[in-house]
Amino acid sequence: MRMRLRLKTVFVLYFMVSLLGLIYALMQLGQRCDCRGHAMSKDQQISQLRGELQKLQEHIKTELSKKTDVPKIYVITPTYARLVQKAELTRLSHTFLHVPQLHWIVVEDAPQPTPLVTDFLAASGLTYAHLHKLTPKDRKLQEGDPSWLKPRGAEQRNEGLRWLREMGAAAEGKEAAALEEAVVYFADDDNTYSLQLFEEMRYTYRVSVWPVGLVGGMKFERPVVEDGKVVRFHTGWHPNRPFPIDMAGFAVSLRLILTNPQARFDGDAQMGFLESSFLQHLVTMDDFEPKADLCTKVLVWHTRTEKPKMKREDALQKQGLGSDPDVEV
Amino acid sequence: MRMRLRLKTVFVLYFMVSLLGLIYALMQLGQRCDCRGHAMSKDQQISQLRGELQKLQEHIKTELSKKTDVPKIYVITPTYARLVQKAELTRLSHTFLHVPQLHWIVVEDAPQPTPLVTDFLAASGLTYAHLHKLTPKDRKLQEGDPSWLKPRGAEQRNEGLRWLREMGAAAEGKEAAALEEAVVYFADDDNTYSLQLFEEMRYTYRVSVWPVGLVGGMKFERPVVEDGKVVRFHTGWHPNRPFPIDMAGFAVSLRLILTNPQARFDGDAQMGFLESSFLQHLVTMDDFEPKADLCTKVLVWHTRTEKPKMKREDALQKQGLGSDPDVEV
Repeated sequence: MRMRLRLKTVFVLYFMVSLLGLIYALMQLGQRCDCRGHAMSKDQQISQLRGELQKLQEHIKTELSKKTDVPKIYVITPTYARLVQKAELTRLSHTFLHVPQLHWIVVEDAPQPTPLVTDFLAASGLTYAHLHKLTPKDRKLQEGDPSWLKPRGAEQRNEGLRWLREMGAAAEGKEAAALEEAVVYFADDDNTYSLQLFEEMRYTYRVSVWPVGLVGGMKFERPVVEDGKVVRFHTGWHPNRPFPIDMAGFAVSLRLILTNPQARFDGDAQMGFLESSFLQHLVTMDDFEPKADLCTKVLVWHTRTEKPKMKREDALQKQGLGSDPDVEV
Repeated sequence: MRMRLRLKTVFVLYFMVSLLGLIYALMQLGQRCDCRGHAMSKDQQISQLRGELQKLQEHIKTELSKKTDVPKIYVITPTYARLVQKAELTRLSHTFLHVPQLHWIVVEDAPQPTPLVTDFLAASGLTYAHLHKLTPKDRKLQEGDPSWLKPRGAEQRNEGLRWLREMGAAAEGKEAAALEEAVVYFADDDNTYSLQLFEEMRYTYRVSVWPVGLVGGMKFERPVVEDGKVVRFHTGWHPNRPFPIDMAGFAVSLRLILTNPQARFDGDAQMGFLESSFLQHLVTMDDFEPKADLCTKVLVWHTRTEKPKMKREDALQKQGLGSDPDVEV
């Protein structure tokens, strides 16, 4: 009897406990399955959080983390005195300030450095070289000439290349090794550049290429990529030029420029052939490295700034009431 | 013995069955709540993302720690769809990213937010409000109209003001106190802004003023300051307008905007009188606070971007060879 009683007790106890366990398990089952309803909003939360995170990461990447262990980008910018020059250089510098390891090579079309550009660069917060090279008169656009008549900036870009080669020749040890990885980009002072563009070009083995927006009478021009290779170009004009690509649409490894000292821009090149005059010394189309998601993203725009009209200024100046010439614009 | 044996058998059987039941229930629990496994990992994901987000936020906060205790600048930017829109917003955002405590209020001239601006803002890294307000047809410039015929952006700036007043009405405590110190600036998306400009306007008691470059057919327009007071305006046109000052040439304390709910832009104002239609509700010339070294420095330029020609695009489109419309420019 004692044994049976004990067994019964154990049995009943076990039954009670296991029943409670089962009930608890079933309750949990009901509760936990509530998560189905929440799953959606959790997905939303996750995607929202991811979005915020990405925003901050980009912010930090561009603004705060001045990375020092990435290849340098040498940007060559030809510039010339005009009413909008300081404005253009100002907004361009704001873009460049976000790009880690960017070295700006500013080449003025002037017989000597101008005070405006000198002071501007000194206050810009950027690492820069300030050069100048006057375009010979016979190669210069004259007042009233259409802008396509002669290529602009060839002499200045060549001066930038000369400076790079001089620097390259003088570099030794670690410095020389760093130059091996660097990349060179030709950035006119009126175009618009996304920050992503610079990360696309940063790792360039020979020549990187990508689309350019609002150029050549087109929404964009771009290299057409098939099986990871550039096979032709989407362009509205002379698609059979050796390299039908805008100045803003490629970057070249500094190593390639240093090992090919003959590569320069031909200031006498026909309209649309300036880029080809330089690139044909360096690569074949087969060498092009397509960037920007296989050339499907527009990350740079060929914007042009209107020449401001000075009608009222001229009228007031005749009356001796013009704007104070001592105020820099 | 038999009884004990039977009881034992029953006990063992029950034990086995209930164990199987429990195991089954537990398995079900795992299976049915497919979401449970994910729910855990989603919760983990969320908490992980939150952690990362907090880390980055703290990182940014410490980086900008010196700058979080300065008055906020609310920048109202009207914008409208056109070929250069993304380019303009891109370079503008690069400028704004350098300015601490800048809150961007972007107001599209559109019946609803466009995907281009929505995606652009989300990736911009800026703090922003994204609004929209369609300009009624009869107030809109038509293709071919000269740009001065009707003021552009009046409805959008008013929508920005409405948003500010709504926010102001909802603010309490510390938040409301911070708004007392904030300043409001109307920044079109094509102009060029120096970084110094924002520090000049940041401390504004009523209305700050300064020169604007390349505006109104002049090298610059500016308030003329004598004995620290604005006494007249250097402008080439209608110097006797109530306030002959460009939209880019002033900033208004948010407090003034909140306490003068009637102040808004008159979309029917004559050319050159849009700024006056707003300012006359808020100040007299006597109240103007001259900035930028007593209005002797040009820190903002009224740049205008050329409308890109689409001649070749149109020709190619007729041949079915136009640029891929799925590529955002």
